[in-house]
Amino acid sequence: MPQLCASLEDVRAAAERIAPFAHRTPVLTSTGLDRIADTALFFKCENFQRVGAFKFRGAMNAVAKLSQTELARGVATHSSGNHAAALALAGRTRGAGAFIVMPETAPAVKRRAVAGYGAEITFCEPTLDARESALEQLLDERGCTPIHPYNHSDVIAGQGTAALELLDEVPDLDTVVAPVGGGGLLSGTAITASELAEGTRVLGAEPAGADDAYRSLAEGKILPSVEPRTIADGLLTALGELTFPILQERVESIVRVDDEAIVRAMRLVWERMKILIEPSAAVPLAAVLENRESFRGRRVGIILSGGNVDLDRLPWAQ
Amino acid sequence: MPQLCASLEDVRAAAERIAPFAHRTPVLTSTGLDRIADTALFFKCENFQRVGAFKFRGAMNAVAKLSQTELARGVATHSSGNHAAALALAGRTRGAGAFIVMPETAPAVKRRAVAGYGAEITFCEPTLDARESALEQLLDERGCTPIHPYNHSDVIAGQGTAALELLDEVPDLDTVVAPVGGGGLLSGTAITASELAEGTRVLGAEPAGADDAYRSLAEGKILPSVEPRTIADGLLTALGELTFPILQERVESIVRVDDEAIVRAMRLVWERMKILIEPSAAVPLAAVLENRESFRGRRVGIILSGGNVDLDRLPWAQ
Repeated sequence: MPQLCASLEDVRAAAERIAPFAHRTPVLTSTGLDRIADTALFFKCENFQRVGAFKFRGAMNAVAKLSQTELARGVATHSSGNHAAALALAGRTRGAGAFIVMPETAPAVKRRAVAGYGAEITFCEPTLDARESALEQLLDERGCTPIHPYNHSDVIAGQGTAALELLDEVPDLDTVVAPVGGGGLLSGTAITASELAEGTRVLGAEPAGADDAYRSLAEGKILPSVEPRTIADGLLTALGELTFPILQERVESIVRVDDEAIVRAMRLVWERMKILIEPSAAVPLAAVLENRESFRGRRVGIILSGGNVDLDRLPWAQ
Repeated sequence: MPQLCASLEDVRAAAERIAPFAHRTPVLTSTGLDRIADTALFFKCENFQRVGAFKFRGAMNAVAKLSQTELARGVATHSSGNHAAALALAGRTRGAGAFIVMPETAPAVKRRAVAGYGAEITFCEPTLDARESALEQLLDERGCTPIHPYNHSDVIAGQGTAALELLDEVPDLDTVVAPVGGGGLLSGTAITASELAEGTRVLGAEPAGADDAYRSLAEGKILPSVEPRTIADGLLTALGELTFPILQERVESIVRVDDEAIVRAMRLVWERMKILIEPSAAVPLAAVLENRESFRGRRVGIILSGGNVDLDRLPWAQ
């Protein structure tokens, strides 16, 4: 068995490290959804996490491990999504400046969120090249520490703390399903579940229009995410060098679902559970509902990854 | 002090009676909303209650007290809202048929909800007269028991169990705010808080466009609700003979807020807490936010009364 970048011990240490800052989110159930799915579902509500997404766990764990010297120089990343807000808040929590590279096309609502947590934003053209070179420049100029959104062992260990809390509260799960984009959350979940609860299988759930993780595992190498098209805007990126081998070893399979199923699942959660989740967070429930026979009668944990949606642009509005 | 229709002992008995059927809903807090309101807010989440509203508590308590003979004849009410769904489910829980009179103008989504809980619906013209005579006919023909949505001592005692749980979890509240329509929830809240937590003041929150409770208390007699106009569709009715004297004696004041403030408060809860609440449930927070100075630095309990909204017609959509 190859040496993985993070272990259950790292996840436990991360849990202790972030405890003063992160919420222990509730695990909710719904009789109505159990009846619809014909299985017992346990929802780990990371939409209630700080900044509205699990991303705060990983960012906080990474920032909490930095030295005073590193904190004084600040942290940096390129992101237009939940990781940017998470890193901004994690930095502020420890008195570190956060420098975020964002494409100039990022929606105003996301700029405001990141700026609201006190980060300094550098805008660039909306290409990966432009984002990476803008980040490089920041690192050179300021000597700040880059915190990658998923290809970072402390981030992976931090994301695993959601599954740790879920399995602490509901130990006897047959299956845990998490969404997969870059693979940080799914890696952390897989490490935790496979070491803590032998016999609990871990599945990834991925939009059919951004199925690079599915194809990467099928081909045995990391494939890029080429022109992904999905409403699940948190799941567009490719796997990383660190996350790929963890998924290879510990994830039973990746289940793909189309956008219509994702929107249906998202709306069901809103209507039945009265909670807001973003499209990316609905992908695991969509995977269960589209494959009922393989989940029937089981006890299934689902990581609801986040709840940041633009209320003026809901996916079912015409 | 006049004899009230329900006491703290009745509320405690109701709590025990409904415990096997109702959810003990969580009390949630939000750092972000506390900062905005400059006070400490404790939200009792009845949007997570069965049927999505506190109404299940009162209906269940009333149904649970019926004899086998009464249960066999069924229960009845006229309502197009949450009480209809609550009575339908409470009836089904005890094996009693539920007969609901609804105006033929009731939206399809509400008909389906009530029918989905197994109730038999009688449609009538959308006037109070037509509703009452259709209900009378049902009672005559079937001998079933009418369960009024608020002017019923067992219903009032049942609604009080939400405040009982809230004060059990957060005993040291300065203030509890509940919305007021017919006054069932506010009466139950006032009985519970005034007897359980002396010194905790109870406020009602009412839409300015349906302010009959405010005017009734000012004039010392029950005034009808004439052509109410508000987005808070659960708060349109007038007070009843049973609820009015309880509010007179135990509620410090009724705070009125306009629809714009209600929609702003509703959206804030969605965005910051990631939970769905209906417009009526946002009225107490709107009352706090529109009168910040009088709540500053306090510990305020808020009853989020329900979460049943039509996701295709959100109040901020144009």
